[in-house]
Amino acid sequence: MNQQILQRQDADNVATLTLNAPERLNALSDAMLSALQDQVDALAEDRSIRAVILRGAGKAFCAGHDLKEMTAGRQAKDGGAAYFKDLFERCSAVMLGLQALPQPVIAQVHGVAAAAGCQLVANCDMAVAAQGTRFGVNGVDIGLFCSTPMVALTRNIPRKHAFKMLTTGEFISADRAQSLGLVNTAVPLESLEATTLELATTVASKLGAAVKIGKQAFYDQISMTTAQAYAYAGDVMVQNLMERDTQEGICAFLDKRAPDWDQS
Amino acid sequence: MNQQILQRQDADNVATLTLNAPERLNALSDAMLSALQDQVDALAEDRSIRAVILRGAGKAFCAGHDLKEMTAGRQAKDGGAAYFKDLFERCSAVMLGLQALPQPVIAQVHGVAAAAGCQLVANCDMAVAAQGTRFGVNGVDIGLFCSTPMVALTRNIPRKHAFKMLTTGEFISADRAQSLGLVNTAVPLESLEATTLELATTVASKLGAAVKIGKQAFYDQISMTTAQAYAYAGDVMVQNLMERDTQEGICAFLDKRAPDWDQS
Amino acid sequence: MNQQILQRQDADNVATLTLNAPERLNALSDAMLSALQDQVDALAEDRSIRAVILRGAGKAFCAGHDLKEMTAGRQAKDGGAAYFKDLFERCSAVMLGLQALPQPVIAQVHGVAAAAGCQLVANCDMAVAAQGTRFGVNGVDIGLFCSTPMVALTRNIPRKHAFKMLTTGEFISADRAQSLGLVNTAVPLESLEATTLELATTVASKLGAAVKIGKQAFYDQISMTTAQAYAYAGDVMVQNLMERDTQEGICAFLDKRAPDWDQS
Repeated sequence: MNQQILQRQDADNVATLTLNAPERLNALSDAMLSALQDQVDALAEDRSIRAVILRGAGKAFCAGHDLKEMTAGRQAKDGGAAYFKDLFERCSAVMLGLQALPQPVIAQVHGVAAAAGCQLVANCDMAVAAQGTRFGVNGVDIGLFCSTPMVALTRNIPRKHAFKMLTTGEFISADRAQSLGLVNTAVPLESLEATTLELATTVASKLGAAVKIGKQAFYDQISMTTAQAYAYAGDVMVQNLMERDTQEGICAFLDKRAPDWDQS
Repeated sequence: MNQQILQRQDADNVATLTLNAPERLNALSDAMLSALQDQVDALAEDRSIRAVILRGAGKAFCAGHDLKEMTAGRQAKDGGAAYFKDLFERCSAVMLGLQALPQPVIAQVHGVAAAAGCQLVANCDMAVAAQGTRFGVNGVDIGLFCSTPMVALTRNIPRKHAFKMLTTGEFISADRAQSLGLVNTAVPLESLEATTLELATTVASKLGAAVKIGKQAFYDQISMTTAQAYAYAGDVMVQNLMERDTQEGICAFLDKRAPDWDQS
Repeated sequence: MNQQILQRQDADNVATLTLNAPERLNALSDAMLSALQDQVDALAEDRSIRAVILRGAGKAFCAGHDLKEMTAGRQAKDGGAAYFKDLFERCSAVMLGLQALPQPVIAQVHGVAAAAGCQLVANCDMAVAAQGTRFGVNGVDIGLFCSTPMVALTRNIPRKHAFKMLTTGEFISADRAQSLGLVNTAVPLESLEATTLELATTVASKLGAAVKIGKQAFYDQISMTTAQAYAYAGDVMVQNLMERDTQEGICAFLDKRAPDWDQS
């Protein structure tokens, strides 16, 4: 079990996924992406889980793609073009899959989050980071601009700061990542696990059906015009109100008592 | 007059609307939404008003929708679905109506701005808050995700911070709301009214025709591509330059004198 | 040479453009816009340049459009409408041209950046500002709402802060501009030139082909949905990986040696 490249541990309606290739700084290799996709598929159907934590074993969260594996891929007749295209499609499927999960996904970040590792942080719904963590999209340093990480990064932090990170390869601190909006909270390393778990537990204590409805609406409405988004979100509210447990939640609030929800 | 659920007071080209149902924390009841829509319709045609302040009577700005009224709506055969759909349409019409007004609308916020009350703050063009105010989109606590408030919130503050507020139900302070971009300024409670009025008075001293043109363009261009937005905004500039008072404003500036504008 | 309205100096793969009409606070006159467009066209084809600095001579970066010239344009039979339309088209072409350049463009800002001068800062890919610089979109003070500057500004800073600047005409400090995201860094005036040059030099040390690919993708993907953006950016990554110098960059990294790139 401890040998698996991606470990999963469930407790109290929270699933913790641990990237477990510490000798490669948890690189997003073919095997890692495949294992992540399997867990995304499993979690999408798992109603017992109401929050997900994603973390890395060893000294880093994730250092990005597996450059050795990618270089080996160049041996194909097309210089690797088909392999690379497939690689980024698989990677983007994992990223979009995490956003499509019914459960909020929280990155628990320490050490280094570089290139596609920084993308993973930006792509998660929330993130908690240890002070001392370094965040960078530094592919430009080896001549490979971080275009896919950029998609997630530019949807998290202000434009000019994203541009600078992408074109200089600079690393920023956890406190800076927090002030820019790349992570929610920066805490001392010794508090990282507890702070992340507390956030996950808080989210898991809410009505899963409502969080599922809301998370989907979050990403759906964000690129609409305001008028479109209001019309869409209004329908989502009606759908949410028709849930039996929501009705009970409102009644319990008005009666000043705890709700009696069906969810375990 | 003091019994009206929405009070309006005009002075010096500034209209102040006061949500006046303090015993229900100024909930957005059917009556409140109807009164707001009436004032939106009236202000849209009122050239004497060049800025609007929106505030709440009593100990809170606004605590959101009226849950008792909503629960009563469930008595219908469809469990309230049609009523709820209509409710959110009416609420969104008020929100979009405030953005469509020719006058800038400033929320003057104290106490609590929760759920649709927080939406109202986010939806206004600007906001001034008293320190000590608590902002939250806490519907998730009763199983009703704040999907419509989310539309306005995610257009004000960074994505991960919005996601956390929505899925944890946490309340944030006025200082935090200011640093995230949910409000423009946080001031001591005793300065709230004066600071808001000063901002409104400043805006009301500008050329109303230019502010009207600009406010409409603000929301129209924001979801366009940059190229589309520049083309659109260029046409808006030409339209603005054709105003007699704009010509006078530019001449006065070049002549180093005060403009002689037609507006009262 | 020193008489030219727009000066260009090249050194170490960095081009420095200096707006040189200090007596008019480097206003974006017809002549200035024409000179800027010429340089944009030249730089688009210049593979020896890998970063561009844009700065102003005299006591200000740029105070916006040339109001005297615009007022003279009103003498036409149509009151200037055709001239104004053409003016904003030319101005927007320069702005979009700067974003379309293969090289990152850094604004080096001091003194005042007002109206279209503030637009120029917001429109550049990055910006370094001297403490003491004042940033404003203050056209509203003369009855001409800064609608075109708004396009760039609202793509840099949070919505409510942009709205306030546009409707009050207020000026903000360099430190505030930095915290809002309008500039990357605010430094003492005596460090301005060195800090900007260091940033430009860092960017110019990267692989120009990768930066070109990445910069174009930056602006292309930003208004797509996340799913569209990931699909697009994945293709961009493949294209980038097919560059000979990128292959060399990755190999050099794996071999722990400096890359041997073709670029001069």
